[in-house]
Amino acid sequence: MERCYRLVIACPDGVGIVSKVATFLATYNGWITEASHHADAANGWFYMRNEIRASSLPFDIEAFSMAFEPIAKEFKMRWHIADSAKPKKIILMASKESHCLADLLYRSHTGELEGKIVAVISNHNDLKEMVDWHKIPFHHITVDPEKKSTAFNEIESLFESYEVDVVVLARYMQILPSALCARFAGRIINIHHSFLPSFAGAKPYHQAYQRGVKLIGASCHYVTEDLDEGPIIEQDVRRINHSDTIEDMIRLGRDVERQVLARGLFYHLQDRIIIHENKTIVFE
Amino acid sequence: MERCYRLVIACPDGVGIVSKVATFLATYNGWITEASHHADAANGWFYMRNEIRASSLPFDIEAFSMAFEPIAKEFKMRWHIADSAKPKKIILMASKESHCLADLLYRSHTGELEGKIVAVISNHNDLKEMVDWHKIPFHHITVDPEKKSTAFNEIESLFESYEVDVVVLARYMQILPSALCARFAGRIINIHHSFLPSFAGAKPYHQAYQRGVKLIGASCHYVTEDLDEGPIIEQDVRRINHSDTIEDMIRLGRDVERQVLARGLFYHLQDRIIIHENKTIVFE
Amino acid sequence: MERCYRLVIACPDGVGIVSKVATFLATYNGWITEASHHADAANGWFYMRNEIRASSLPFDIEAFSMAFEPIAKEFKMRWHIADSAKPKKIILMASKESHCLADLLYRSHTGELEGKIVAVISNHNDLKEMVDWHKIPFHHITVDPEKKSTAFNEIESLFESYEVDVVVLARYMQILPSALCARFAGRIINIHHSFLPSFAGAKPYHQAYQRGVKLIGASCHYVTEDLDEGPIIEQDVRRINHSDTIEDMIRLGRDVERQVLARGLFYHLQDRIIIHENKTIVFE
Amino acid sequence: MERCYRLVIACPDGVGIVSKVATFLATYNGWITEASHHADAANGWFYMRNEIRASSLPFDIEAFSMAFEPIAKEFKMRWHIADSAKPKKIILMASKESHCLADLLYRSHTGELEGKIVAVISNHNDLKEMVDWHKIPFHHITVDPEKKSTAFNEIESLFESYEVDVVVLARYMQILPSALCARFAGRIINIHHSFLPSFAGAKPYHQAYQRGVKLIGASCHYVTEDLDEGPIIEQDVRRINHSDTIEDMIRLGRDVERQVLARGLFYHLQDRIIIHENKTIVFE
Repeated sequence: MERCYRLVIACPDGVGIVSKVATFLATYNGWITEASHHADAANGWFYMRNEIRASSLPFDIEAFSMAFEPIAKEFKMRWHIADSAKPKKIILMASKESHCLADLLYRSHTGELEGKIVAVISNHNDLKEMVDWHKIPFHHITVDPEKKSTAFNEIESLFESYEVDVVVLARYMQILPSALCARFAGRIINIHHSFLPSFAGAKPYHQAYQRGVKLIGASCHYVTEDLDEGPIIEQDVRRINHSDTIEDMIRLGRDVERQVLARGLFYHLQDRIIIHENKTIVFE
Repeated sequence: MERCYRLVIACPDGVGIVSKVATFLATYNGWITEASHHADAANGWFYMRNEIRASSLPFDIEAFSMAFEPIAKEFKMRWHIADSAKPKKIILMASKESHCLADLLYRSHTGELEGKIVAVISNHNDLKEMVDWHKIPFHHITVDPEKKSTAFNEIESLFESYEVDVVVLARYMQILPSALCARFAGRIINIHHSFLPSFAGAKPYHQAYQRGVKLIGASCHYVTEDLDEGPIIEQDVRRINHSDTIEDMIRLGRDVERQVLARGLFYHLQDRIIIHENKTIVFE
Repeated sequence: MERCYRLVIACPDGVGIVSKVATFLATYNGWITEASHHADAANGWFYMRNEIRASSLPFDIEAFSMAFEPIAKEFKMRWHIADSAKPKKIILMASKESHCLADLLYRSHTGELEGKIVAVISNHNDLKEMVDWHKIPFHHITVDPEKKSTAFNEIESLFESYEVDVVVLARYMQILPSALCARFAGRIINIHHSFLPSFAGAKPYHQAYQRGVKLIGASCHYVTEDLDEGPIIEQDVRRINHSDTIEDMIRLGRDVERQVLARGLFYHLQDRIIIHENKTIVFE
Repeated sequence: MERCYRLVIACPDGVGIVSKVATFLATYNGWITEASHHADAANGWFYMRNEIRASSLPFDIEAFSMAFEPIAKEFKMRWHIADSAKPKKIILMASKESHCLADLLYRSHTGELEGKIVAVISNHNDLKEMVDWHKIPFHHITVDPEKKSTAFNEIESLFESYEVDVVVLARYMQILPSALCARFAGRIINIHHSFLPSFAGAKPYHQAYQRGVKLIGASCHYVTEDLDEGPIIEQDVRRINHSDTIEDMIRLGRDVERQVLARGLFYHLQDRIIIHENKTIVFE
């Protein structure tokens, strides 16, 4: 894939935004290879994402930012620009269940994942061997119910020392402290094994079995202080029927979970997601 | 379709049930054209549905019942037998929204619906003209908030006088009284415009919009005293994204709702559903 | 829905197109409510669709066109602009099968269809009563195998006299003459009851049954001289299994067909489709 | 999962088959935990699969077979019985693409796959390291276009020496010789990366791209002498649109392929598939 810059913008809607941005780019001979827009009539906001061929522009990201800043200010934009040549640093967190972790490691291994897995953190040692094979640092940090803060301080230090861009909870069975969620808002992605808001909390497949639903699902969302209530990125479902036991649902659900998580992460890594309040705009 | 008997059974599981039933049928030269079984290891129950070519048996349903009763007793069966030549009598109930009603009327018109729509009841007059065209009696029964019991007494009388087999709430926007739900338990089918248990209650598309889900759904279920909590028969979903407004969701949802309701009713009319506690076994 | 203009453009890709178009619009205070872009790296073309609030612009479509023409010329654009206040005139063509026709009539009846069904043409009389109820002119034009050209001349005259914008073959079982296809290229939409290119031609469900596929589908496409080979607009599938007979497949397929056709027509009516060679860009 | 016997039967349909089989089982106190039937009115055949709790029967598979043989003869059954405690021996064959291979290795690793991967055969060495990690023998057998028979003789010998039960072509890019296909009929499973019969043969995603389809698919089927024409076991699709390049299709298709192959193999390993002429009955 050719190197590109990704310019992602959210601002109050109005006349002339596209014109201003596109003209700014055209002035510098910027070649737009992909452009997505969304005007939300309900809240009066405008969202925009452009991919621009990096080689068509005369400056790097810093110079771009400086040149663009006055426009951003004029339109009160929340915005950022990313360079596809600078892959995001990813930390995966897992417990004992391997399917989501193994899937992301595999996608990374084959080059499908645009980003670099810099470390795996787990509260158990079960998945170490698998991670070792991929030559990725594995950190075993036990979460003692009595000394949670010790564990999460250590985890936070790892986030810092790795300069992590995005954390993926790949079936990590611990609840992160509020302060950590707040500090890394919009940068921690979780996979929940239900079609949210149904069956939030513990043992969603057991809940689904009890309720007798005909489809099971999975939801990928940003983590906030409110458990399983953060902005949803991606969801999908799979049909089941009366003959499926809880064990069948767990087995079938694994395939939905890992696909939903992989798609959600894919969008994040390519800066395709804009969070606005508790919802997401996803430019697939 | 050839005329058939449908023998539907639920009983505590054990050795010899299939043998006993199949041998009973074979003794009378009964030709089984479709057979479905389900043994639920979790609750220890066994469920079974057989379609038998009517012409292969030497007796009618009453004689069949008499001959089968001792076996049913031996295995403590809850069971019934239905004759495909005796279509179920259906009453549709609607308010102002026409999509589910129109869809079922159309399916009936083209002969796809195995059953006979004997009447339509509505608390509004808007859909009368459409129903009239199908030459089906239309009953306009206003539900005055102050005098609900009057309205529902009248409705119950209609159920009786039409000797209704199944009532379909095709987006009927009133809550039925508990007593009516109890009396017609397992015979009233509702379509709810969400993927239950998410967004039970009023305005589910508005709830879905607020939560920012990526799929909208519909659920067809039996009505019980607990609103939107009855046994689920069928569910389906459709993908949406950030650009879909509530109006889009309502429009797209209509297609899901009418299909889910039609499928659910189809299963009911062919005696493909067994209700067990708050769940369904559906032999598609 | 607020009145809008839809500006649809295809041109060789290059720097400055978005800037030029957006600035043109901004100059006249045009408020863009929806914008879609696609740059096709494989063929070097650029495609664009803008919805602009009509009330925000100081001119009507003719004046817009005149003002925009120089830009269009500069970039060698194939383009058009449409006014949402001027609904497209639709002619539906059917034979004996009613499901697609009934579905589109119903959607029109409820105001879901952005466009006006001006007439129905059929080679049979079976569906007349249904069409009459909707107070839409019904033309019964028999297609005598010996005198096809007479029939199709008559049909072509109807297209002319109704000044039709789009013709929908809603399970019309006759093959249109090449000249007619050519003359109305990009304006005749067909629904084929298979997942094309599988099972083109006659009796696709029978073909699917013979092949033992596990999904059946439907495809909505523009009609060209090459039967079932025109640009595909929309497709969908439904799961079947070994127990489904051809009759089941036909029944289940009806639901897929009418949804796929309705979606395809919906996109066309809102000018969301650009045809390029034998493929479509569909800005959903 | 509790140990069970799986009794799979196909025979000309008639009265008394279920009775005879069920009574045979009941006589020996056989506890049926799952039963599936299918009577095909079109070809007059009857298909049946029973899972029986092994511990409930007084004999092993050989004794069972001897006792059952007279009944099988009476009804002209094609039948077999399998023991869940004797996992099928699987050989995987791959070339350079790793996604299907990695997926099956992973499922085996986590115990999801009911069967034992005894060896991997490849015409390239690329995937050796991955296979080695799983401690499964890897055989690199180059297929020289001039000396294909040498290679395939060697492969056939491996099939023999491993006493393979089922061979999976997990994106193995070589065509097996007819004699090998014939000898292992019903025991070689292939994944083809299209929705068959569309896009049989080479480079299906390129074909799909050219045709402009709106869904891509994958098909899992038994291998016969006729390339990509064997009985289909399982198929699935995924939505794409105009913005997806061939590379995107290949990437997105990988997820469909590996799921379809895993499901197809799952059914085979549990003896859920009956092949009849060129179609399959799959008792999910």
